Amino acid sequence: MASLVQHLGLFLLFFVPLPLVSCHSHHHPLDFLTPSEFHQVQAIVNGSNPGSSHNVTFQYVGLDEPDKPALLSWLSNPNSTTLPPPRRAFVITRLHSQTHEIIVDLSTQSIVSDKVYSGHGYPLLTSEEQTAASELPLTYPPFIASIRKRKLKLSDVVCSTFTVGWFGEEKSRRVLKILCFYTDGTANLYMRPIEGVTIVVDLDEMTITEYYDRLTAPVPEAEGTEYRLSKQKPPFGPRLNGVSAMQPDGPGFKIDGHNIRWANWDFHVSFDARAGLIISLASIYDLQKRTFRRVLYRGYLSELFVPYMDPTEEWYYKTFFDLGEFGFGLCTVPLQPLADCPSNAVFMDGYYAGQDGKPVKISNAFCIFEQQAGRIMWRHTEIEIPGEEIREVRPEVSLVVRMVATVGNYDYVLDWEFKPSGSIKLGVGLTGILEVKGVSYTHTSQIKEDVYGTLLAHNTIGVNHDHFLTYHLDLDVDGDANSFVKANLETKRVKDNISPRKSYWTVVSETAKTESDAQIQLGLKPAELIVVNPNKKTKLGNYVGYRLIPGSLSSPLLSDDDYPQIRGAFTKYDVWITPYNKSEKWAGGLYMDQSRGDDTLAVWSQRNREIENKDIVLWYTIGFHHVPCQEDFPVMPTLSGGFELRPTNFFERNPVLKTKPPTYVHWPNCTTKS
Amino acid sequence: MASLVQHLGLFLLFFVPLPLVSCHSHHHPLDFLTPSEFHQVQAIVNGSNPGSSHNVTFQYVGLDEPDKPALLSWLSNPNSTTLPPPRRAFVITRLHSQTHEIIVDLSTQSIVSDKVYSGHGYPLLTSEEQTAASELPLTYPPFIASIRKRKLKLSDVVCSTFTVGWFGEEKSRRVLKILCFYTDGTANLYMRPIEGVTIVVDLDEMTITEYYDRLTAPVPEAEGTEYRLSKQKPPFGPRLNGVSAMQPDGPGFKIDGHNIRWANWDFHVSFDARAGLIISLASIYDLQKRTFRRVLYRGYLSELFVPYMDPTEEWYYKTFFDLGEFGFGLCTVPLQPLADCPSNAVFMDGYYAGQDGKPVKISNAFCIFEQQAGRIMWRHTEIEIPGEEIREVRPEVSLVVRMVATVGNYDYVLDWEFKPSGSIKLGVGLTGILEVKGVSYTHTSQIKEDVYGTLLAHNTIGVNHDHFLTYHLDLDVDGDANSFVKANLETKRVKDNISPRKSYWTVVSETAKTESDAQIQLGLKPAELIVVNPNKKTKLGNYVGYRLIPGSLSSPLLSDDDYPQIRGAFTKYDVWITPYNKSEKWAGGLYMDQSRGDDTLAVWSQRNREIENKDIVLWYTIGFHHVPCQEDFPVMPTLSGGFELRPTNFFERNPVLKTKPPTYVHWPNCTTKS
Repeated sequence: MASLVQHLGLFLLFFVPLPLVSCHSHHHPLDFLTPSEFHQVQAIVNGSNPGSSHNVTFQYVGLDEPDKPALLSWLSNPNSTTLPPPRRAFVITRLHSQTHEIIVDLSTQSIVSDKVYSGHGYPLLTSEEQTAASELPLTYPPFIASIRKRKLKLSDVVCSTFTVGWFGEEKSRRVLKILCFYTDGTANLYMRPIEGVTIVVDLDEMTITEYYDRLTAPVPEAEGTEYRLSKQKPPFGPRLNGVSAMQPDGPGFKIDGHNIRWANWDFHVSFDARAGLIISLASIYDLQKRTFRRVLYRGYLSELFVPYMDPTEEWYYKTFFDLGEFGFGLCTVPLQPLADCPSNAVFMDGYYAGQDGKPVKISNAFCIFEQQAGRIMWRHTEIEIPGEEIREVRPEVSLVVRMVATVGNYDYVLDWEFKPSGSIKLGVGLTGILEVKGVSYTHTSQIKEDVYGTLLAHNTIGVNHDHFLTYHLDLDVDGDANSFVKANLETKRVKDNISPRKSYWTVVSETAKTESDAQIQLGLKPAELIVVNPNKKTKLGNYVGYRLIPGSLSSPLLSDDDYPQIRGAFTKYDVWITPYNKSEKWAGGLYMDQSRGDDTLAVWSQRNREIENKDIVLWYTIGFHHVPCQEDFPVMPTLSGGFELRPTNFFERNPVLKTKPPTYVHWPNCTTKS
Repeated sequence: MASLVQHLGLFLLFFVPLPLVSCHSHHHPLDFLTPSEFHQVQAIVNGSNPGSSHNVTFQYVGLDEPDKPALLSWLSNPNSTTLPPPRRAFVITRLHSQTHEIIVDLSTQSIVSDKVYSGHGYPLLTSEEQTAASELPLTYPPFIASIRKRKLKLSDVVCSTFTVGWFGEEKSRRVLKILCFYTDGTANLYMRPIEGVTIVVDLDEMTITEYYDRLTAPVPEAEGTEYRLSKQKPPFGPRLNGVSAMQPDGPGFKIDGHNIRWANWDFHVSFDARAGLIISLASIYDLQKRTFRRVLYRGYLSELFVPYMDPTEEWYYKTFFDLGEFGFGLCTVPLQPLADCPSNAVFMDGYYAGQDGKPVKISNAFCIFEQQAGRIMWRHTEIEIPGEEIREVRPEVSLVVRMVATVGNYDYVLDWEFKPSGSIKLGVGLTGILEVKGVSYTHTSQIKEDVYGTLLAHNTIGVNHDHFLTYHLDLDVDGDANSFVKANLETKRVKDNISPRKSYWTVVSETAKTESDAQIQLGLKPAELIVVNPNKKTKLGNYVGYRLIPGSLSSPLLSDDDYPQIRGAFTKYDVWITPYNKSEKWAGGLYMDQSRGDDTLAVWSQRNREIENKDIVLWYTIGFHHVPCQEDFPVMPTLSGGFELRPTNFFERNPVLKTKPPTYVHWPNCTTKS
């Protein structure tokens, strides 16, 4: 019998969120910048601009990803005296209306390069400039007049910033549009849009440069829009009884800095202002080969395209690219213990640079927990053998790493789930609040035109839109030289009546030679899509591989020549393969705000590079068409999707054949303190 | 602080599997037959065959589903003195080589009708006749000679039964094929097939009527095929730490007979020898309307088609219809507490009639548990309002009803997951053991022909195959008169340059008038598929509905004119809608064994009946193409799929807006007894 004291310790471990700030002396080369490194970068960059350092704004500061060959070479000799690749920061600043790309070397404390970017598009927006812009209307007389005209109280108006997109304009300036909402009687500002006003702010000048008050529509009522528990009135319900996760043997994972080891998995997590969560160097231990084998060099959400489907003056431009414009790291929200993550979760903080370059902490940016959802990892009952009944069942435990990004109204839950069987499942949950349009209608019978959405409440249209999440998955299946195989399932006709059957299907595999061979619209042709290592075979002679099991399909419906679709051309195919290229990280381009589609995955791939037996990257887009419904009002029940990367002849046999079922302990002698 | 005694009680409740045998005096009209009712049916049927009752075999005994109008009328007057619909059993027997369909009235203890079925196809196989047939070869001299020729020990040979399908033969007899396996050194008989022998058994005569020993292939070695933990040798791993589910407030569901009430859901579970789990009368409580509203009248897996893709003599016929041939209820396995279902599960038994008509119990046929997988039901973080930070998160708890059917080698995990948000998710897990073919190859380099599968081990080909699970979903969306709406998402071109945008998509809804309008191959056209109640609108005027969110797509690849595909023609479309018809329960027909495709969903639908504003049934097929891989050897990690039925304007607003987060309790004062 274990002692009380031991278990007290155990419980503290479970229930206290653990902020696991890296405090060991040397970094992993893929660790994100520490607070002190952010300070160093700020000092170095500001130091290089004497006299105008107060004008520099830091639009992005992050780890300059080490060269992959250098990192792999360092990793392959862990005990050697080889130094890790130089630790560098990549910085994008704005100074005097120019965008600078700066590389700072942290070991030499010096600037390696500082280039002015003169192409199209602008960097990530900072929170500070968005806040400043959104406050401008409140002191802008024409806006005050508009509010007065609508008989609203200025003190209850809250404004927010929206990127403007690009619609063929030849000249661009760094501008945002501002939309305002009414918070009288509700915290759910998005449900009370003040329709008809267009406000354009020039960010370099930080002034309102255009203003139109084109139409008025009723501001939807506050009634029924609240989602805060404290504002709800009875009856409450439905009642849910909690289920707490208890781990008799404690958590099964170990965190060392930002490296996580659990069951047969080993991987690194990192935080980035743009991507949010980055998973690197995911390797799985092969019990037979007695070694870790790499699966994924680096994986992260690369872009999230959210086009709305209302072409009218006040709505047409709403075609957001949330990662490149707003930053998923910047939008990462602190996770709430026992709510966003279960009771057995541990938490990790993130840091990004504020506009002044100083570090800003996001507490509980990630959570990590063992998930036992009651699923079965494998099982079999055997009753065919006379006199024997065999029942072998292995319940599944998996490890989840989660982040949530709230981009204004919408909340995205991103999960990476690692399974002992070798699968990696990427889960996406959409929740939060819709973007709605104020209209005069209070009943569908009044609607005689296309309103581009669904009437959700009085005067409230939930506007149709899409979400396309494009993942960058640099798979390294047992090494970095990989090929992409389309294992097509083709119907064959039985010839010459040699069988009573007339048909069957068989696998006809094609290896993609160049990028165009691997541009795939799913659903057109049945196939298994496999990344293989053409240099490694199982003992039986099958190529080791991982296959992509897609989720449900939703392809873009915008015309190819439409501006948002030109910018979001990376969604044209569900799957793309590119040769690894350090600079090709962001599917829509490095400068997404007002981009013109000249730096997208679709453009890179026009070079039609060779991808056979190369270090390749798989890009996969999971899409959702969203026709809002009344259940999404005033806050949306999570809509889930996802996809799976699953080993296919990667192992010689089932890698969890020899997993023992976890132990269960009865906890009969408990009392509660509630 | 709660007392120790209280919590002791609580724990007993959690950890002791509760066999919830219905013991109340009156049945729900949809309850499956009780043991005593099975005995009554047996006595009545046997009594009607004096002199030959010992020759009667009971191929199927189940509840004769009450007429839907009668049942609904009875349900709508719960307090009236109206009697429930008459309680009847539907029985299929074989007697003197004829199939009888018998209806027994249990209240009058009499036979209502007894008809001889003279169409094509045969009823469900009984376990007893399969066992008898599989033992015949062991005393059959030519088979003994075949075994001797292969230098195998007869004592280690185990045989199993396989349905023969139909390949255009004009005359049929009730036959099975027998395949035999070698268990020397392993319990994994499926991995040691004795290839090349064809044995045909006539079930009416119970004799071997055809025998061929056409070829020999090596019997794959036993080495590496064991999956039993007790037979594994070190090293073990990966190690998984358990996570036990603890419920501070106890389970949130109540079971009354076979009725389950949980959160806002109320539904009935039933067991059937053919379908396994049946969910009926699923209704959800509407907090605003303060009433239960029906969603699903009756839902169950209707057929499971598993065609293998090897056209050679010994394999071509393997095109199984597991429900109609073998019975998913008959194949339901007892669930193992703490392994098949989590620690907070409760269990329910099932009963079916043995070949002699007497009841056979399946302990723990279903489990029911609250699942808290760490998912988020809805959330939002709000930082736009100056001076406020709002973080509202509701963790998700759902209720799962699970069964597992093991059909010979394969194990199917079927989950019905009810969510408080109104969604019903149907989950399918495929695990168990592959059907493999013995071949001479030991390395892929030796293979120069199509081997119809993957080399998984020495002399072992995992043969390509499909799984198509077709669900019968009699949705009654807020009443039984429903329509099926295809809400097509259509790209519109912006005309006359009235917007900077060039395109957008909008919803163009079509209501299906007749069955052919609702035959849908998914993936061809983007659409939301919605079952609406055309007689009920929300206050805002939207039709109340539930939509189908499909899982990943896999459509049949056999030729339409191929015999297995004629029999499995119900898989031709992913979605079908039929008007409710009590007799249309089994997508492939009532008599599936050797059926000729004349009683399938595809045939019924040729009548192209009206389906608008009718009581309609949604049929949905979830498919898997399975190209085996080495990880599936010797036992398969679960491959999962599923789909969702989600309310769409069914509620006036988010139905879980006013759900309080479940309470969590620290359990600090525990000691273990392990």
